[in-house]
Amino acid sequence: MAELIFTEDGAHPGLDDFRDLSTADRRPDRPGGRGLVIAEGTVVVGRLLASRYPVRALLGVHRRVRELEGALTDLDVPAYVTSAETMAGVVGFHLNRGVLAVADRPVPPTVGEIVDRAKVLAVLEGVGDHENLGALFRNAAALGVDGVLLGPGCSDPLYRRSVRVSMGHVLRVPFASFDAWPDGLDVLRDRGFRVAALTPRPDSIPLRGLRDQLPGPIALMLGAEGPGLSEEAIAAADVAVRVEMVAGVDSLNVATAAAIAFHEVAAG
Amino acid sequence: MAELIFTEDGAHPGLDDFRDLSTADRRPDRPGGRGLVIAEGTVVVGRLLASRYPVRALLGVHRRVRELEGALTDLDVPAYVTSAETMAGVVGFHLNRGVLAVADRPVPPTVGEIVDRAKVLAVLEGVGDHENLGALFRNAAALGVDGVLLGPGCSDPLYRRSVRVSMGHVLRVPFASFDAWPDGLDVLRDRGFRVAALTPRPDSIPLRGLRDQLPGPIALMLGAEGPGLSEEAIAAADVAVRVEMVAGVDSLNVATAAAIAFHEVAAG
Repeated sequence: MAELIFTEDGAHPGLDDFRDLSTADRRPDRPGGRGLVIAEGTVVVGRLLASRYPVRALLGVHRRVRELEGALTDLDVPAYVTSAETMAGVVGFHLNRGVLAVADRPVPPTVGEIVDRAKVLAVLEGVGDHENLGALFRNAAALGVDGVLLGPGCSDPLYRRSVRVSMGHVLRVPFASFDAWPDGLDVLRDRGFRVAALTPRPDSIPLRGLRDQLPGPIALMLGAEGPGLSEEAIAAADVAVRVEMVAGVDSLNVATAAAIAFHEVAAG
Repeated sequence: MAELIFTEDGAHPGLDDFRDLSTADRRPDRPGGRGLVIAEGTVVVGRLLASRYPVRALLGVHRRVRELEGALTDLDVPAYVTSAETMAGVVGFHLNRGVLAVADRPVPPTVGEIVDRAKVLAVLEGVGDHENLGALFRNAAALGVDGVLLGPGCSDPLYRRSVRVSMGHVLRVPFASFDAWPDGLDVLRDRGFRVAALTPRPDSIPLRGLRDQLPGPIALMLGAEGPGLSEEAIAAADVAVRVEMVAGVDSLNVATAAAIAFHEVAAG
């Protein structure tokens, strides 16, 4: 059982993990970054506790920590219980979700390890917006995508805002970064995957019915809203696919386009 | 041609439409609300200028107003040109999109008028989140939905944040509110529509393949993320449909679920 530690001492050294939250979640190679994984709110903290991420500590108001009691039974970490005011003082801003947990980053899987266990994958290039990335992971989890592979220009899925917007699903859907791009896509093809690039190019085929043509393992490759995928990425794909849209309307948000594509290939 | 009026006088009476923006967009029946429709940024302002909404005035920095020159040619409204500082003083906050336009609300169409011109419709119940509503209109525009019909509990699509998140598509996709609910759905059925309620209920049929069963005019009914549609709304539908999802994952964001459903029935 996690040890409940009641304190109103904002200087308590056990709370150090929770200070300056707006920089602590940066990757260790960034200024001020410690690479901590930070979960906010009972739903996301619950997912963190159930994940393979090594939890370091919890901090919350009593009511919220109590809501997590069941998940804390098998956990040997300190759970600091304070008032909302003390919590705000430590964290640096008022956090209305009332509970936080921090974890270390586990050793990430390799692209090959993810591909070996997957039938449907998402491959991203240049998705630098943390909210879009988080939303995409949430959609991937909901629609049965087995993993997310990150090409160049993608932001860190474990950044606090991504964790929050994903509702904690970045902690469940495995992800890995390519070492080589777009050559790394060969790892997928070597294991029987076909790579479908989402792009509005006129020579692309409609997404609808893609599954009839490509019933086997499939990787859906998406680029950022606006610029889209690079020429190199599209050239390295097996097929170019488009979400059919009304002419003259802006492209869809990347997480929304992804959800449509995930549903088309992964569901049912 | 719109008249360009250069002024740094923040008290200029012509700028009154742009004061206290954070309340002026409220519906006239709400405190401080004037019911003005406010567009921000060149893309959305351009859509407003091209819409049927009666534009009252523009306010922007010179560079942004110039970008809209082509759209202003046929327009007989004042376009106030100021510095970013004067603009911020008038508006009440710094607006980095650099240009605003205000318009009056036109007389809204009736549900029947929208239904008469539509083949695919969205019907919403309880979608009270302005960002979700705006995103849903954007997706409706992109995926060829002909109109949005609002049941009880929906927020105002012309609220400034909805306009912005929709990228101005609330000004293009027609919408109307039901007088009676859910009885108002009879208007759709009387005109040959089938109403499909999106709900995860176990007796629902999968969304995929819905078009094979219901090839004619169709209305997709969606409720808010979380509570979903009311029992009454589901009972009033012709068919219950679900987006197939992984068990134990939170429901999708309503605008995302809508995009999947719109693509399934409207595209291709």
